[in-house]
Amino acid sequence: MKKIKVAIMGLGTVGGGTYEVLTRNRDVIASGYGVDAEVVKVLDRSEDVLVSRGVPAEKFAGNIDEIIKDDDISVVVETMGGLEPAGTFIIKALKSGKSVVTANKELLAKRFDELEEAAKEGGAGLYFEASCVGGVPVIRTLTDSMQANRITEIMGIINGTTNYILTKMSEDGLTYAAALKEAQKLGYAEFDPTADVEGFDAAYKLSILASLAFHTRIPLSGIYREGISKVTPKDIAVGRSMGYTLKLLAIGRKNADGSAEARVHPAFVPESHPLSSVRGAFNAVFLKGDFVDEIMLYGRGAGAHPTASAIVSDIIYCADREEPLRLDFKNGEASLADDFSSEYYLSLTVADKPGILASITKVFGDCGISIGKMQQQVSAAGQAEIIILTHTTKESAVRTATERLESLGGVKKLNTTLRVIK
Amino acid sequence: MKKIKVAIMGLGTVGGGTYEVLTRNRDVIASGYGVDAEVVKVLDRSEDVLVSRGVPAEKFAGNIDEIIKDDDISVVVETMGGLEPAGTFIIKALKSGKSVVTANKELLAKRFDELEEAAKEGGAGLYFEASCVGGVPVIRTLTDSMQANRITEIMGIINGTTNYILTKMSEDGLTYAAALKEAQKLGYAEFDPTADVEGFDAAYKLSILASLAFHTRIPLSGIYREGISKVTPKDIAVGRSMGYTLKLLAIGRKNADGSAEARVHPAFVPESHPLSSVRGAFNAVFLKGDFVDEIMLYGRGAGAHPTASAIVSDIIYCADREEPLRLDFKNGEASLADDFSSEYYLSLTVADKPGILASITKVFGDCGISIGKMQQQVSAAGQAEIIILTHTTKESAVRTATERLESLGGVKKLNTTLRVIK
Repeated sequence: MKKIKVAIMGLGTVGGGTYEVLTRNRDVIASGYGVDAEVVKVLDRSEDVLVSRGVPAEKFAGNIDEIIKDDDISVVVETMGGLEPAGTFIIKALKSGKSVVTANKELLAKRFDELEEAAKEGGAGLYFEASCVGGVPVIRTLTDSMQANRITEIMGIINGTTNYILTKMSEDGLTYAAALKEAQKLGYAEFDPTADVEGFDAAYKLSILASLAFHTRIPLSGIYREGISKVTPKDIAVGRSMGYTLKLLAIGRKNADGSAEARVHPAFVPESHPLSSVRGAFNAVFLKGDFVDEIMLYGRGAGAHPTASAIVSDIIYCADREEPLRLDFKNGEASLADDFSSEYYLSLTVADKPGILASITKVFGDCGISIGKMQQQVSAAGQAEIIILTHTTKESAVRTATERLESLGGVKKLNTTLRVIK
Repeated sequence: MKKIKVAIMGLGTVGGGTYEVLTRNRDVIASGYGVDAEVVKVLDRSEDVLVSRGVPAEKFAGNIDEIIKDDDISVVVETMGGLEPAGTFIIKALKSGKSVVTANKELLAKRFDELEEAAKEGGAGLYFEASCVGGVPVIRTLTDSMQANRITEIMGIINGTTNYILTKMSEDGLTYAAALKEAQKLGYAEFDPTADVEGFDAAYKLSILASLAFHTRIPLSGIYREGISKVTPKDIAVGRSMGYTLKLLAIGRKNADGSAEARVHPAFVPESHPLSSVRGAFNAVFLKGDFVDEIMLYGRGAGAHPTASAIVSDIIYCADREEPLRLDFKNGEASLADDFSSEYYLSLTVADKPGILASITKVFGDCGISIGKMQQQVSAAGQAEIIILTHTTKESAVRTATERLESLGGVKKLNTTLRVIK
């Protein structure tokens, strides 16, 4: 039996869940995996929180140094969130030779090199399965199950808040504002929902996952990001009538020329696609490797218990390893593609007069975009709504086309441009 | 850089794929994971096979002892299949201290204890991610990602042959015989398809997976097994009209009283269930833990490359571990439940005369089975077909009811009894 002593920094939702798992299932873990993990110190700004979680007083740490100086502690769990003081505390722990298990995606996405440097200096390990997609083992699958593969694509629904909102809009016809309100009431969305709804959270996770998948650093600044706050129930309804479900997707690709692309944006997914049936707060990720082909992982992307499950699995994983796992993206920063390809959905409001369709299709033709499907509907007196689905084309071509359309006589409004997944 | 020398026994489909992966992606593995895995010996009954796979002559092993005696070899891959000589060769390798990576589900399901004993004796490790669900990391998820959880359920589609056949029957209306023939033509089914279509293959995998999930041995003999060879296009069509898809499911449960249940049988799955959209040769497995809730893993369940991907991931995993992973089901053999609960679908042909429905529903009532839905259709002169969907009930109650129904006046034939998943 391996005995390890653990400290937890931050006893909020996830930290509290971790304390609960390690307490309640300590016997399962010990008998099943030969690792007896004991929480010996817990640090939180508020002693009331510690008391309410049932932590005995002798385990309260007054400050970070009490943890650092305790040589018995080999693993420190960081569940404080935010950049600081979490960053400073993690670096202290790593430099002192303690391995760190964290769920802090923002910190990892913004300061990974600095953390990894500290880990190397201290001969410690840095583990972060819990940072992406809750209890779903997407990082372990990348690092421990797909090693034989060149990974060429990662695509998924990796933010539960936005998936909940889009599911509500799609299935119950709610507006964005009403669905957001419901998500906030249920605790799925924050009071300030920006990080989730504008795609920042998904971009943090994509930066981490794509960097691991492609063995090359995908910086946040290289990720194209578009949120869901402008999505309308009407676009969702039109998409549904054409057999599509709207999802906020995170997509990373390693192209044949060695360049990478990474983007977070809403996209229409065909109803027959497995991602289409990922509903509510659930998440799912597709990984494509040259030998294994496609793998999909599905589960709860957030929540105290699923995330705590991932943290505890990292603690045991870390105890089992001969040497710390080094994920230092050896190949440096990725060369990022400045364009990408997709199918597109466009919705325009136009004057209902002869010749307008011809001039619109001419713009597409001039930009080298091939139209797959087009439908027109009179929407009000003298106005018509046109929906266009393109074949696969370049994003840059669509941007040129939409600019021209906006200044085209007879086009009253370019309502929506959305990408479509095959 | 860790350098390890590998031998492969059996260069058929999967062994050949493994040789190909280790040759073609050796650089990816070395630069990404710091493990340089070199195949130094290959054993096969036929030298022609080795030549056709491009194995250089100096790597041909004349017999198993050439591999055992080579102290440089630390990992032996077994991809011969079958019980013997694979079993003897694996035991020799393990006893000599070489870790073994195998895809041999039948051998693992039938002789696991013996193999694990040899592994302990030799201080070696036994790894078998490739034995279940091809390249999908279901074993790694159980052992390395869900350690914090008491796993209470495993449910999945873990045989690609039968899923291909059922998909063809369901989507193209083929008979079982025609769908099987097509599967054979495509290489998805063997000339003698018994192991797949009668559920033996799924039972081997369920024995392995449920034993790992529940930390207790689920012997083959304890698994209820029913294949798909009696499934008719008509049942599939009726199920579809009621919103169900027919799948061959493997189900393992750990009950609250500590008993376990394990079964392989066809079952109706609601169309909204993620397993319903797992089509063709794809596989998917649900795992349920007390903290992580549900995880689903999806991907190709067989094939040379996906399976080879899992084998190579085991080779690297094994090279990374401080001590061999011991999966010896410490808690001994499971106490198996002698009954289980499900919803049921029954189809009966009856004489179309007054009172027959009343006498049928009385049988169900007498057996304590509550009927959820019932539909009747005149099928031929003087005959009617009755479809019954029950609420959750005991398997034993349904068996009693069907026995009584078969001898009930007016019942011409009990066509089908199928379980239904919620």
